[in-house]
Amino acid sequence: MTRTAEIVAIGSELLTPERTDTNSLWLTAKLNEAGVEVMLKTVVGDDEARLEETIRDALKRSDIVITTGGLGPTEDDITRQVSARAVGRELIYHDELEARLRERFRCWGHEMPEINKRQAFIIDGAEILPNPNGSAVGMMLGLGGSLLVVLPGPPRENQPMYDNFVAAKVRQLAGEVIVKRRVLRVSGLGESAVDEVIAPVYRQYESVQTSILFNKSEIEVHLTARADSAAAADAVLDELAKQIAEVLGMAVFAMNGETLEEVVGTILLENEKTLAVAESCTGGLIGMRLTDVAGSSAYFLEGAITYSNEAKMRALNVPEQTLIDHGAVSSQTAEAMAAGVRKRSGADYGISVTGIAGPDGGTGEKPVGTVFIGYADAAETRSVKFTLPGDRYMVRWRSSQAALDYLRRRMLKDASIKQ
Amino acid sequence: MTRTAEIVAIGSELLTPERTDTNSLWLTAKLNEAGVEVMLKTVVGDDEARLEETIRDALKRSDIVITTGGLGPTEDDITRQVSARAVGRELIYHDELEARLRERFRCWGHEMPEINKRQAFIIDGAEILPNPNGSAVGMMLGLGGSLLVVLPGPPRENQPMYDNFVAAKVRQLAGEVIVKRRVLRVSGLGESAVDEVIAPVYRQYESVQTSILFNKSEIEVHLTARADSAAAADAVLDELAKQIAEVLGMAVFAMNGETLEEVVGTILLENEKTLAVAESCTGGLIGMRLTDVAGSSAYFLEGAITYSNEAKMRALNVPEQTLIDHGAVSSQTAEAMAAGVRKRSGADYGISVTGIAGPDGGTGEKPVGTVFIGYADAAETRSVKFTLPGDRYMVRWRSSQAALDYLRRRMLKDASIKQ
Repeated sequence: MTRTAEIVAIGSELLTPERTDTNSLWLTAKLNEAGVEVMLKTVVGDDEARLEETIRDALKRSDIVITTGGLGPTEDDITRQVSARAVGRELIYHDELEARLRERFRCWGHEMPEINKRQAFIIDGAEILPNPNGSAVGMMLGLGGSLLVVLPGPPRENQPMYDNFVAAKVRQLAGEVIVKRRVLRVSGLGESAVDEVIAPVYRQYESVQTSILFNKSEIEVHLTARADSAAAADAVLDELAKQIAEVLGMAVFAMNGETLEEVVGTILLENEKTLAVAESCTGGLIGMRLTDVAGSSAYFLEGAITYSNEAKMRALNVPEQTLIDHGAVSSQTAEAMAAGVRKRSGADYGISVTGIAGPDGGTGEKPVGTVFIGYADAAETRSVKFTLPGDRYMVRWRSSQAALDYLRRRMLKDASIKQ
Repeated sequence: MTRTAEIVAIGSELLTPERTDTNSLWLTAKLNEAGVEVMLKTVVGDDEARLEETIRDALKRSDIVITTGGLGPTEDDITRQVSARAVGRELIYHDELEARLRERFRCWGHEMPEINKRQAFIIDGAEILPNPNGSAVGMMLGLGGSLLVVLPGPPRENQPMYDNFVAAKVRQLAGEVIVKRRVLRVSGLGESAVDEVIAPVYRQYESVQTSILFNKSEIEVHLTARADSAAAADAVLDELAKQIAEVLGMAVFAMNGETLEEVVGTILLENEKTLAVAESCTGGLIGMRLTDVAGSSAYFLEGAITYSNEAKMRALNVPEQTLIDHGAVSSQTAEAMAAGVRKRSGADYGISVTGIAGPDGGTGEKPVGTVFIGYADAAETRSVKFTLPGDRYMVRWRSSQAALDYLRRRMLKDASIKQ
């Protein structure tokens, strides 16, 4: 049986527009590694009633409840008394904690302010979790089958505390479960289309949790396997991932969470091929994505951001007549751009984008979102047209995705490329 | 009486170590502006029991409950049926919603998959919130004194939906507290330096809450004023913002939250000037940022992404001897690139970046993060050197910021530019 956890982040500052709880990400990774699933996260401020209800409800629903924050010495720091109330226990004053606090302050060359005395109160029966990096100790309390863990807010205080005192207890509760994850990435298909195609496959694997996520312009298939050993978890993931890749075919571009620019880069690198890019409406986004990959200078030669017609003619040798006859947003211009940048740079492959990102510039014949992708290699020059939904940001992002994916698909058809 | 709100983010992916809910930050800002205080935030997965309890409890405690996510067409998307159950109402099927969905899919050139039919179900009595940017409509339902708002997950869908259909209702509930916010943006100074300079100013304004935030490569000064009227709130914000701008001088680039690329674009547009960009280590990021602004084709002529030395020579006329004598990462090369792209494009201004983004390529003399920015106008060519901290992503981002800010500062010194 999978153990479940909830994480409660405490502090009014975490309810402002500027801050968010990030402790829970680190804790989630630790809990997941131990085979524990995080079912719910809460952020609550200095509101005693809401905090008490949150902790009480969480303990009813989940095996492990971890709180972070609210253990400081001020009146706003209500975690100590409220968590005691939520579990129906007294706070007990600990002389030796106060003595240790006074000693800490003396070492820093200060007298301990009287308000810090609050930090010497501990829930009756709780284990005290020492804090070498701050004045607030943590608490851990077993309650029947469940576990309440109360940690301070700062990561450099709560992370060593978890590693040193909580991790072993969590492992003991969770037992010997191994959890492994894998992410496949898919382009050119929608969320529901992917689900329709792969559901018959993943439904046969009950030990793997499959979820399908939409991420800007691509679909992610997340697989999470639980098994008794790492080898068994990997084996079932390998098998399911392979079957999913088979039914989806070329649409799967990454078997291990790689980005599209990484995948394109790897194909180029392994085949010692080079690339140049000509961008109009994406304005540098494709170059930016390609060069985001460390080591991309091995295959990315250059990019031309040709926003004006004049730049398209001068920098890429797009014939003026092509622009007059077909317009800047046309398959003919896209092809001339791809061939032009390839020739100019001496690269093996040239790709190009020209389109209408909006919000203005659309026409009846070529509405906002009309995008042409051009491709050129030694043997041929081609193009493809898309009509992409969304605002300016999304049209540009999806154009960059379409261009990189078109390049990937064309390269995989090129006889000189190893599969 | 201050109205209270809770925000519920729905989706198992938000409970993984890699993702976090960020919708709540934007929504919190909007709610705060209306004088509504966010008391609690929850992230919950595809667990029906927990989600139902969360929505039900939130509606008991708070005046406004906003959920985001879980409105997609797949089985994991449980928000529709669970929120209906939490408020004890039926889901009603809407023919006209299905017809509209089918139409949307047809426009994209697809047949609607049958599972998308789920998206035509609406809680009985709820107002339907249209979604021009996606297939999931939202819902809004008054329940006695409280309000349940069900929004889709993607920010590009839920933000316009909130602005267009929810904001007015929230204002009506919250009554006549006027809260206004203003964001000033500052470049070239650190967080504590900004605080030191402006604290004596903002401390004199007790009705304005001032917070200083660090945002990738710039500092934001957030001012929040509460007053009885919009005019009174604006007046105090105007006064404080003006005083802050005076003490910070040229470091303040935006008085109303504009991005640096918007500010640069406005200067160019208002002065009918044009710009061309030559990028090495930023690989297209500067062009991408500049062309992210709608209407940028009026001033952005072209960009050259010259990653290789050969491209720098061929496309920008950087002399081979300069590259041999000083290296590709040098003030001389940066200046030759800026002058070269300006000349080639016929633009009024040229800017360039060359540097070492890492993780490899650093030397003792030129460590990772060494970046030269070049600038050229009709009268002069200059450059400036930065040593920027951070990983590849941050060095590239900060380089783009440094280049745009250098351009802004140089243009403001140009005699032909209106202040």
